[in-house]
Amino acid sequence: MDLWQKFCDMQAEFSKLYHAIAVLSWDQQTYMPVGGSEARAESLAYLQTLAHEKLISSKTKDLIYNLEYLKDDPEKGPIYNVVRREYEKAVKIPIALVTENAKTTSLAIAFWQEAKQKGDFSIFATHLEKVVTLQRQKAEVIGYDNEPYDALIDLYEPGMKTKDVEVIFKQLKEALIPLVMDITARQGKRPDLFNQDYAKKSQWDLGLKALQEMGFDFNRGRQDYSEHPFTISFDPSDVRITTNITTKSFPSSLYSSMHEGGHALYEQGIPGKWRHLAIGKAASIAVHESQSRMWENIVGRSKEYLSHLWPHIKTQFALELQTVDFDSFYQAINWVEPSLIRVNADEVTYDLHIFIRFELERDLLAGKLSVSDLPKAWDEKVESYLGIKVPNPAEGVLQDVHWAMGSIGYFPTYTLGNVIAAQFYQQARHEIPDLSQNIAVGNLSLLREWLREKIHQRGSILLPLQLLEEVCGSTLSVKPYLDYLKEKYLI
Amino acid sequence: MDLWQKFCDMQAEFSKLYHAIAVLSWDQQTYMPVGGSEARAESLAYLQTLAHEKLISSKTKDLIYNLEYLKDDPEKGPIYNVVRREYEKAVKIPIALVTENAKTTSLAIAFWQEAKQKGDFSIFATHLEKVVTLQRQKAEVIGYDNEPYDALIDLYEPGMKTKDVEVIFKQLKEALIPLVMDITARQGKRPDLFNQDYAKKSQWDLGLKALQEMGFDFNRGRQDYSEHPFTISFDPSDVRITTNITTKSFPSSLYSSMHEGGHALYEQGIPGKWRHLAIGKAASIAVHESQSRMWENIVGRSKEYLSHLWPHIKTQFALELQTVDFDSFYQAINWVEPSLIRVNADEVTYDLHIFIRFELERDLLAGKLSVSDLPKAWDEKVESYLGIKVPNPAEGVLQDVHWAMGSIGYFPTYTLGNVIAAQFYQQARHEIPDLSQNIAVGNLSLLREWLREKIHQRGSILLPLQLLEEVCGSTLSVKPYLDYLKEKYLI
Repeated sequence: MDLWQKFCDMQAEFSKLYHAIAVLSWDQQTYMPVGGSEARAESLAYLQTLAHEKLISSKTKDLIYNLEYLKDDPEKGPIYNVVRREYEKAVKIPIALVTENAKTTSLAIAFWQEAKQKGDFSIFATHLEKVVTLQRQKAEVIGYDNEPYDALIDLYEPGMKTKDVEVIFKQLKEALIPLVMDITARQGKRPDLFNQDYAKKSQWDLGLKALQEMGFDFNRGRQDYSEHPFTISFDPSDVRITTNITTKSFPSSLYSSMHEGGHALYEQGIPGKWRHLAIGKAASIAVHESQSRMWENIVGRSKEYLSHLWPHIKTQFALELQTVDFDSFYQAINWVEPSLIRVNADEVTYDLHIFIRFELERDLLAGKLSVSDLPKAWDEKVESYLGIKVPNPAEGVLQDVHWAMGSIGYFPTYTLGNVIAAQFYQQARHEIPDLSQNIAVGNLSLLREWLREKIHQRGSILLPLQLLEEVCGSTLSVKPYLDYLKEKYLI
Repeated sequence: MDLWQKFCDMQAEFSKLYHAIAVLSWDQQTYMPVGGSEARAESLAYLQTLAHEKLISSKTKDLIYNLEYLKDDPEKGPIYNVVRREYEKAVKIPIALVTENAKTTSLAIAFWQEAKQKGDFSIFATHLEKVVTLQRQKAEVIGYDNEPYDALIDLYEPGMKTKDVEVIFKQLKEALIPLVMDITARQGKRPDLFNQDYAKKSQWDLGLKALQEMGFDFNRGRQDYSEHPFTISFDPSDVRITTNITTKSFPSSLYSSMHEGGHALYEQGIPGKWRHLAIGKAASIAVHESQSRMWENIVGRSKEYLSHLWPHIKTQFALELQTVDFDSFYQAINWVEPSLIRVNADEVTYDLHIFIRFELERDLLAGKLSVSDLPKAWDEKVESYLGIKVPNPAEGVLQDVHWAMGSIGYFPTYTLGNVIAAQFYQQARHEIPDLSQNIAVGNLSLLREWLREKIHQRGSILLPLQLLEEVCGSTLSVKPYLDYLKEKYLI
């Protein structure tokens, strides 16, 4: 067997192992009975270690070094380079650090939960310190040019540097803070949709309707319930999403379905023939988030799509919305108001939450901020960016699980996703002149097919910024995003 | 690390791999979208090959040979011997045969489905020939004393021989055929419960009630829907069962839940501390079946338990059973009548179906019966044992998937399960004097705890017949089973 075939077979082994890991994780969050958690954690850890050991094995190393001559090959080069990049990142991290990190974060998550519940940061502090120390060690072994945070952000956004994020975030911050003030000054009284119950079944059905219109393929995926909504791909032919429905929070489950549906369309759009190749996955986390947030916000909360859904919503929730007209409904859905909790934030104030987290975690990692000073720093930034006081740590510094999980470097991808979504969408509007009119009649297929052709079917052949260049002919730019927000909220 | 610790770690690796395989299989049969089947089959095949290669590896071999001195150790010996037995069986079968078998049966299942659908045995015939040839080869490489069938039955019932089965089956056949005639002669007109719809939700709830009374632990397991009901254990802390509910077939879903619940109690009753040891599983397939059939038939269809359930059933299905009294209900549930389809057979005629399959597959394997003569031989036996003519192969020789799957040697375990169930139950009645009275008030915990102590918590430390000897002080005997049937149906 030639080396290239061996190289492909090796990738197929990974893909089959990751398939199993993904199924076990999905079940863990959807159907697993409480008693099963210990055995599940053991089986998952075993498979993950198996995959890691396989990736950093001498067999992998030999194949990579013997096939180096392919790195500029027009066809095989991109495949080769993705595997090589993954190998080189993984091999630098000692197994001991991987194990230590798994143990530390597993404890940190438990203590974070307790701390959040009791509203007492001190319960979590020493664990967070350990997490930060380990993430710093990870950054050191991976290596970086300018600062340790570079190494971590690169894990989620290949090729992205801290200073790139800083440039983008500075531009956004300078525009968004006054924009929020502008918008809130123009708003009248908030229409209240939430003083009653919205049946779960009807909410579920509304989400399904949107998923069907988006073109989510139910033959190659499904939606289930879970506490926290998520998307997971076993294979392009089996992509699972989940939603959570609370009766008081209509229509948040619609947006949970559209958000996860956006992720899922990306995964279902990866070419099936690449299922066992390293290029058969998304370009990056931010590009993934660009898909989910485009469908959730730019499409899902648009006047066009909501006007299409409105008669259906009015029928499904006839009693609950009896006295509500479309304009109030639209305004309620798109109400802008600084608030404490990131996941509940509207699309305009959302990024302000991200800036806070990015600046804090960058400084934590660089040693410029100590864990003990973190709660104070958090509260100050919330007051400065959002203009509100944090009443307690549960609604402040303790609200997100990310740091407990060791996911430092991940937060920026949310805002980068918003920025990229707007760039892609602007390009789509340019290339599909009657896009808005189609969305207004519920025809989402033009957008879906455009995204499929331009983004999904390219897998991870291109780095995120290369993909952006290829699709939009431009680099990362905040202008389309700010234009979109201004057009939507100020005109 | 000492060798024994390594030996235990190796078993833990298997258990974690099997956990993953089981989760993937469960999802395949419950929630997987149709499009996901190819990728799932690939991932499953990969994990199964991984487990097989690990089992027959030189590392396993070395551990087994270096620890041979432990085989009579009172504590470690039983663990050692189970692993050794599995290793020795697996290592004899060449990988090429395993692969060839997987391919052949996967094709055979597809052609069996088509053949059954079209009622045309010839579509399946050449595939079945290949299956039989491969099973014969398997028997040859495993080795046997008297006849090839011995090697196959031993895969499901360690220590059981063809002639042991023949002795038992002969005794049963001689008693059961006249018994069926006796019973059917005494029966009046069959009470008809099936001319209306029974709501799925109410049937599901009735099954849950029985499972709760049986003591199925929903913190360590769950019930879902699937086309064919099954039980699968990921770990004693996570045991899944499924049921299938058709509105016309009340109360069959109750019995599907109780049957699978019986299997599940066994798996949930395996000591948690053995989860990663080879002894932490059931003693054999027949012992497993003894648990499911005891709960389904001996308990579930008893006058005692049904009289306890009756008020509840009458309330749940008030309209549907308005004109039905308990005696008619009980008679309908326990109606005896020779029929064509094994899985729908009552408990008295059920074994006649098994005799047919056992005799045919034994003769196929021995080369005494050719595949081309099989349909004729089937029809003759059905007429001889059940007294009915087979109208078409779909309701005859093509009704079961087992042969297409290559599961030759499996069928006898169903009847052995019935026999063993009656032996265990007789012993339970002896040791728990007020067992019947307790069942009549819905208290099933005495029986469950007895089974847990005597059978479940012993895992596979003992061979099936050793277990029987230990629990009942006797060897395999048809008397308790025949006594049970006669007492129930003739007195």
